[in-house]
Amino acid sequence: MKRMELLKTLAAEGGGKMILLVMDGLGGLPGAEGKTELEAAFKPNMDALAGESELGLLEIVDVGVTPGSGPGHLSLFGYDPLEFSIGRGILEAMGVGAAVGAGDICARGNFCTRDGDIIVDRRAGRIATEKSALVVKKLADSIKEVDGVKVSLYPGKEHRFVAVFSGEGLSEEVSDADPQAEGVPMRPARATSKNGERMARAANEFIDRVASVLKGESPVNGCLLRGFSSAPDIPLMPDLYRIKPVAVATYPMYRGLAKLVGMSVVDAGETLDDLFGAVERAYDDYDYFYVHVKYTDSRGEDGDFDGKREVVETVDRLIPRLTALDPDVIVITGDHSTPSLLSGHSWHPVPFLLRSKYARRGDSTSFDERECRVGAGGRIEGSKLLGLMLAHARRLEKFGA
Amino acid sequence: MKRMELLKTLAAEGGGKMILLVMDGLGGLPGAEGKTELEAAFKPNMDALAGESELGLLEIVDVGVTPGSGPGHLSLFGYDPLEFSIGRGILEAMGVGAAVGAGDICARGNFCTRDGDIIVDRRAGRIATEKSALVVKKLADSIKEVDGVKVSLYPGKEHRFVAVFSGEGLSEEVSDADPQAEGVPMRPARATSKNGERMARAANEFIDRVASVLKGESPVNGCLLRGFSSAPDIPLMPDLYRIKPVAVATYPMYRGLAKLVGMSVVDAGETLDDLFGAVERAYDDYDYFYVHVKYTDSRGEDGDFDGKREVVETVDRLIPRLTALDPDVIVITGDHSTPSLLSGHSWHPVPFLLRSKYARRGDSTSFDERECRVGAGGRIEGSKLLGLMLAHARRLEKFGA
Repeated sequence: MKRMELLKTLAAEGGGKMILLVMDGLGGLPGAEGKTELEAAFKPNMDALAGESELGLLEIVDVGVTPGSGPGHLSLFGYDPLEFSIGRGILEAMGVGAAVGAGDICARGNFCTRDGDIIVDRRAGRIATEKSALVVKKLADSIKEVDGVKVSLYPGKEHRFVAVFSGEGLSEEVSDADPQAEGVPMRPARATSKNGERMARAANEFIDRVASVLKGESPVNGCLLRGFSSAPDIPLMPDLYRIKPVAVATYPMYRGLAKLVGMSVVDAGETLDDLFGAVERAYDDYDYFYVHVKYTDSRGEDGDFDGKREVVETVDRLIPRLTALDPDVIVITGDHSTPSLLSGHSWHPVPFLLRSKYARRGDSTSFDERECRVGAGGRIEGSKLLGLMLAHARRLEKFGA
Repeated sequence: MKRMELLKTLAAEGGGKMILLVMDGLGGLPGAEGKTELEAAFKPNMDALAGESELGLLEIVDVGVTPGSGPGHLSLFGYDPLEFSIGRGILEAMGVGAAVGAGDICARGNFCTRDGDIIVDRRAGRIATEKSALVVKKLADSIKEVDGVKVSLYPGKEHRFVAVFSGEGLSEEVSDADPQAEGVPMRPARATSKNGERMARAANEFIDRVASVLKGESPVNGCLLRGFSSAPDIPLMPDLYRIKPVAVATYPMYRGLAKLVGMSVVDAGETLDDLFGAVERAYDDYDYFYVHVKYTDSRGEDGDFDGKREVVETVDRLIPRLTALDPDVIVITGDHSTPSLLSGHSWHPVPFLLRSKYARRGDSTSFDERECRVGAGGRIEGSKLLGLMLAHARRLEKFGA
């Protein structure tokens, strides 16, 4: 039996409240002084929690595999990231806050410069985000549907946008309408199976309509579409585990991801202070809180060791607001590592801390990679964390008599 | 998705160089003074590497399972040893340096003493290797083919030899022509499926021809064949991971194993000094170096604790020749444990060290079983090591968006 099915059979009504604090890209590598960002940070509150917690490491996808944000979060939410996947189009759509219903197909769009059928610039000179938004508005006003398929457009950063196609008989089995090269002809979308034919036709008609609406303009006079994908067919967390989960995240992509797995979403404002305030306000209404802090990852991506360390320190000062709520389970972890040394996501296992009354706590006085390596939580698959949280919240029955 | 397929989709062109130093049978057990061979060895170079490395333990096949050399190496090369296997015949053929093409079938042969149809001695008095070689030569001169199937013979140790059958329509689906007992009649090979019929016929005709060529001689006047097997149907490392791997090994069996998974093979001479010189000469032409040291296992098999310890010390003195090449990744490990206490292979997990710029290095000042137990590398399946090496060499893309 798969773990997810097993947990579903064991999940019971009632039990404690759980907070999952995801510090994006939390795991690191030693810097100049031989310490990771987390080891170097002054974080008395997390360190105090460590003494009441099980510490361990999460192997998010598999040994040596660097997780993207989608698989990283799916794993933390209890899904095997090799079984369930989220397409690029849908993830981009989540990122711009698009509404995506069952059966809808999303595609990532680029505005481009064409000379007749030849692609001159795949990114139309990377036009400014504000300018791009105006183009999206103009197109949205002119193109409501193509070939009987409803089209919704959402502006992204610079030359990027998202198109959501809604209608009967659409499928993601369509190749990219983007040759990923310049100085070559436009490439129409093609059905990769019979199912994809209607979507391919609509996509190609959309591209033609865009060219006709923008005829004579410069630099944007065309578009490319790629990564056609539908909302994933994924069982929802409330149905699987009898919990009422909520996402508290300032970035749209993470709110979108959470919606895809059945979480409610509340307004989390803009700042870290807003974020923690949103948890407090929502506290009585839910029992599983996914709280997302983006900036650990951002500073890691920047290669900014001290910046990442400082984000940890800032979050640490807010930890008392979580503990004051007195949840039954608090987990602090990340969806992957983002060592400043690599300026990007990495494959290194991610430290976690699980505080509960029932933790087999050790003697740790610090929450960091070194302590987590020898902690009572061991080194487990990321997708097993959720079950561990449910257990500590007394939400799982005994297996077998 | 299986790990191998996942890594194949993530493998990118380019990236760093990797050296895998396999000290055969490296893992040990405590001797009289409570230290393993590795713990007792004076090995300042490996210990210095430990401080810049992730240390861990490899579970080569599965908990409690003692790996043979074939599965041990397949695991290190990234293959699930329970999914991919290498027949005894083919392994024996590799051991004697036989050439085995696609579709060929190998069998392990014993020279025996027959009295009519009755097997008197399955090993013909364990005749001397030199004498056996003369018998092989005589047979090879008389028997070029049987029933239209080409036969190539290779002498082994004492009464052993290898037969390679080449021709259309051969299959390994054939039972042993060897009852594994004395005082009983000869047992013909039988097809275990329709596919095996041609091979079974050829094998039985070969056995009859041997008896007629050796008629009246003593003690060798017949032969037995067992372990019919073809080269395994196994995806090749260069195709899977976009690497250019090479084997540097003094023993033919290990070169043969490496060839089966798509490695090039270079002349590695006879001594450890030759071996490390061969790595240096090949360094510019490849990006993955499998370097095999046999003697740790040999001394372990002899039950010679100090001998095994001394091999470790000898290899340690050569380590600076590897680090001088400045590869992006160095791994030192074994294909299984061979504790002197057991005088044989064992099931104990095998220590490994992985040195890379991106290692989550700890505070280890020694490379041994104790340190590896608490190292940042954790305790992982042997077949996951290759993916970890690829990650550290920056040869894998991110998984998912």
